[in-house]
Amino acid sequence: MRHSWLDLPDDAPFGVHTLPYGVFSTEGEDPRVGVAIGHYIIDLAPLAAVEGLEGGHVFNRGSLNPFMALGRGAWDAVRGWLVELVNGESGREIVEPHLIRADEARLHMPFEVADYVDFYSSQAHAENVGKIFRPDSPSLPAAWKHLPIGYHGRSGTVVPSGTGIIRPSGLRRVGEDIGYGPSLRLDIEAEVGFVVGTPSALGQPVPIDEFEDHVFGVMLVNDWSARDIQAFEYVPLGPFLGKSFATSIAPWVVPLAALQHARVDPPARDPQPATHLADAQAWGLDLRLEIEWNGTVVSRPPFREMYWTPAQQLAHLTTNGAAIRTGDLYASGTVSGYERDQRGSFLELSWNGSEPVSLDDGSSRSFLEDGDTVTIRATAPGPDGAQIEFGEVTGTVHPSS
Amino acid sequence: MRHSWLDLPDDAPFGVHTLPYGVFSTEGEDPRVGVAIGHYIIDLAPLAAVEGLEGGHVFNRGSLNPFMALGRGAWDAVRGWLVELVNGESGREIVEPHLIRADEARLHMPFEVADYVDFYSSQAHAENVGKIFRPDSPSLPAAWKHLPIGYHGRSGTVVPSGTGIIRPSGLRRVGEDIGYGPSLRLDIEAEVGFVVGTPSALGQPVPIDEFEDHVFGVMLVNDWSARDIQAFEYVPLGPFLGKSFATSIAPWVVPLAALQHARVDPPARDPQPATHLADAQAWGLDLRLEIEWNGTVVSRPPFREMYWTPAQQLAHLTTNGAAIRTGDLYASGTVSGYERDQRGSFLELSWNGSEPVSLDDGSSRSFLEDGDTVTIRATAPGPDGAQIEFGEVTGTVHPSS
Repeated sequence: MRHSWLDLPDDAPFGVHTLPYGVFSTEGEDPRVGVAIGHYIIDLAPLAAVEGLEGGHVFNRGSLNPFMALGRGAWDAVRGWLVELVNGESGREIVEPHLIRADEARLHMPFEVADYVDFYSSQAHAENVGKIFRPDSPSLPAAWKHLPIGYHGRSGTVVPSGTGIIRPSGLRRVGEDIGYGPSLRLDIEAEVGFVVGTPSALGQPVPIDEFEDHVFGVMLVNDWSARDIQAFEYVPLGPFLGKSFATSIAPWVVPLAALQHARVDPPARDPQPATHLADAQAWGLDLRLEIEWNGTVVSRPPFREMYWTPAQQLAHLTTNGAAIRTGDLYASGTVSGYERDQRGSFLELSWNGSEPVSLDDGSSRSFLEDGDTVTIRATAPGPDGAQIEFGEVTGTVHPSS
Repeated sequence: MRHSWLDLPDDAPFGVHTLPYGVFSTEGEDPRVGVAIGHYIIDLAPLAAVEGLEGGHVFNRGSLNPFMALGRGAWDAVRGWLVELVNGESGREIVEPHLIRADEARLHMPFEVADYVDFYSSQAHAENVGKIFRPDSPSLPAAWKHLPIGYHGRSGTVVPSGTGIIRPSGLRRVGEDIGYGPSLRLDIEAEVGFVVGTPSALGQPVPIDEFEDHVFGVMLVNDWSARDIQAFEYVPLGPFLGKSFATSIAPWVVPLAALQHARVDPPARDPQPATHLADAQAWGLDLRLEIEWNGTVVSRPPFREMYWTPAQQLAHLTTNGAAIRTGDLYASGTVSGYERDQRGSFLELSWNGSEPVSLDDGSSRSFLEDGDTVTIRATAPGPDGAQIEFGEVTGTVHPSS
C-alpha cells in the first residue's frame, strides 16, 4: 500500500505517521529544526518561509525550545500541515526542494534541557533493584504504590545520542575497602523521556488531564549509571554522582500526537491512586523497546507495563506547586518487564553479576567494558498497522580519563 | 576612620569591602547589573561605558551570567576597578552620577540557575536529622565522613528573596493514615550558596585547588522544606516534592574575592578525606548566620563549623566527570552548630515539634504557620575589623492554593 508520494522503501526509518522533530546541521550551516522522514530530513525553516507558515521562524533555531513554547495549538497546526504535505500528491513539489539526505546531516541536542527529573515507575524494575540492593527489606519502598517516586538529575550532562561515555571515577566499596577509582559496575537504564513545551505558573499544580497541553513529545533515554558509586553514596539523599556523569537522549522527539494509537490501559493499580493521580483517560503507552549490546539484542522491555504513566508523573511532579518550564525533561525510570529478557538494566539482566549475559560474539558480560556500545530503539503501534518509530539512542564507553 | 568619599553612615548596609553584585531595575527601565554600597546601588552599565571598561556591555543584561562567564581575570579586574573608584577621592565625580537609591530599585534574580545541587555538610545538622528521622540507625549515614553527600534540586523553582512561599500540598502520613493535603510541617533550611562562573568540560573533574577559578560568588539560601512530604517520599531516591516547590536566594552575590579575611580552617576530618578531597589550602569560611522568625532572632548558625568546604563540594560534584556550567548553584546544606540556638532548621530547633520555639510576641512555634516571615542574614570578617555583609534572604508563607 502506497501512503505518500514519498514512496518510502521498506527498510526506511520514520514513516509518514511519526514525523519526529530534531535539530540538525549540514556542512557550513547553523543547526536548525528538521523532521525525519525515511532517509531524509525535511528542512523546516525554508519550507515554512516559502509556505508563509505563521511563526515559522522558530524552526530557524538550534533547539526545539522556541517551537515547543508556542503551545499545543501550534504543535497541532504544524503537524496537520506536515501530514498534508507528505501525504497529498501536491506536497511533492513543495517539499522536495527542502529534503536533506539524513546521511549528510549532523544531529544535535534536540532541545535545551531545563530541569531533568527521573522517575522509578516500573514495578518489575523497582522490585528487582530492591531484591538486589536491599535483600532484607520489602522489595518495594513503602511509598512506591502511593506515588511515582522520582528525583532530580543533572540537566547539564544530558547529552545527544552518540556522545562518548567516559567511565566515571568515584569513591566506592571494593570488598571491605572504600577506595577511589573508575567505576567497576557501569550500567545503562533504558528509559523513555517526556519533554515539556508549555510552562506552568509557580504554585499551580498541573491537573492530570492537562498532560497533553503541556507535554510536547517523547524520546528514548539512556540513563547511564555507575552502580558501585551509586550504592556507596545514595543514603539518605538519593543517587548523585552515580548518575550525573551522563544521560543520553535520542535526537528525534516524537510528538505526543503521533501516539494516539499506542495508548493502552496501564496495569491495575492497588491501592487506588490519590485524587490528583486518578487518570480517567489513562496514558499507558505500548512502546516496545529493544536493547542492543555490542550488536546483540539482549532485552525487549515493554513500556506498557509501567505502573505509573507519564500523565501521572507530570501531575505528581507539580502537585506541590513546582512550576514546569519549556525544555523540562522527565524520564520514566528504567523500563523492565517481568521476564529476564525484558529487563532494562544490566544490573538486573546479570542479576548484579551473578548471571552474566552471553553476547553473539561469544563473550559474556555483567557490566559495561571499555569500548562497549549500547543502542536502545523503540517502536509503537500507529494507524492502519503502521509503526511509529523512535529511532535510537546510542553510546560507546571510553576508558576513564 | 573614614574609608571612602562615600562616608557611609554607621547603619548603612554593604560597606566598601563587600561590593556584592546583583540585578536591579528602576521604574520603566530594564533589569541590569548593579553593585550594592550603603543605601545605594552603583549602576554598572553606564559607569562602565563612560569609563570605557572593556567588556562592560555584560552589565547591561538582566542576569549576572554573561559577566560570570568572563572568568576570574575579568572578575578580579572589575573588582579592582571598583575598589579604586569607591576608595579613591577621584572616584567621587565618576561614580556619583551612577548611584541609584536602593529604596527606588527593584531587585531581581541575580543569575539564571543552570543546575542546582544541595549538599548536607554540617555534621551537627546531619546528626540531628539522623536522630529525629532514623532513631534506630547510626546518626550519620555510612558514607557521610567519606564524601560530601548531596543531591540535585529543582533549578526552575529557585526564586528571589521576597517571593511569597505558597504552602505545598502532597501525600503524607498523618498518624496511621496516608492522605493528601497541605504540608503540616513546613520548615526552612538556612544555607549558603555558591555560584559557578567558569564552566568545565564533560569528563574533566575540577581539581580542588581550582575552586577560585570556577566559583564566582556566595549568597544566602533558604531551602524551604515540607518535612512530612519529604519523610513520606524520600526512600530510596531522596528528597523530591518536599523541597522542589521553592528555594529562595538572596539578591546580592558576594564575590569570593571579598572573603579572603573570612577563611578559616575547617574542623579536623577523621578519616582523612580521599585524595581528590584533600585540601592543602582549606576553604572553611567564618560566615555568621542569623535566622529571624517573625521578628525574633531564633538562631545564629556558625558556617565555620561545616565539615565539608565549598572547595571540597565542587571537587566532589565533578569527580565523576560531570561538567559545570555558568550559573550552576550549589548550596552548603543546612548550617547548624551544636548548640540549640545554632540550629539551622525548625525541625531541629523544635526537635520535630517536641520543644517549641518561643517568639518575642509571646507565641510559640514548631513549624511554619501561614503568614510567618523568615529572614536569614549573614556577615563575615573583612579587612581591618570591617565586616563583609550578605544582606538577607526573606520569604513569607502563603496559604496553600
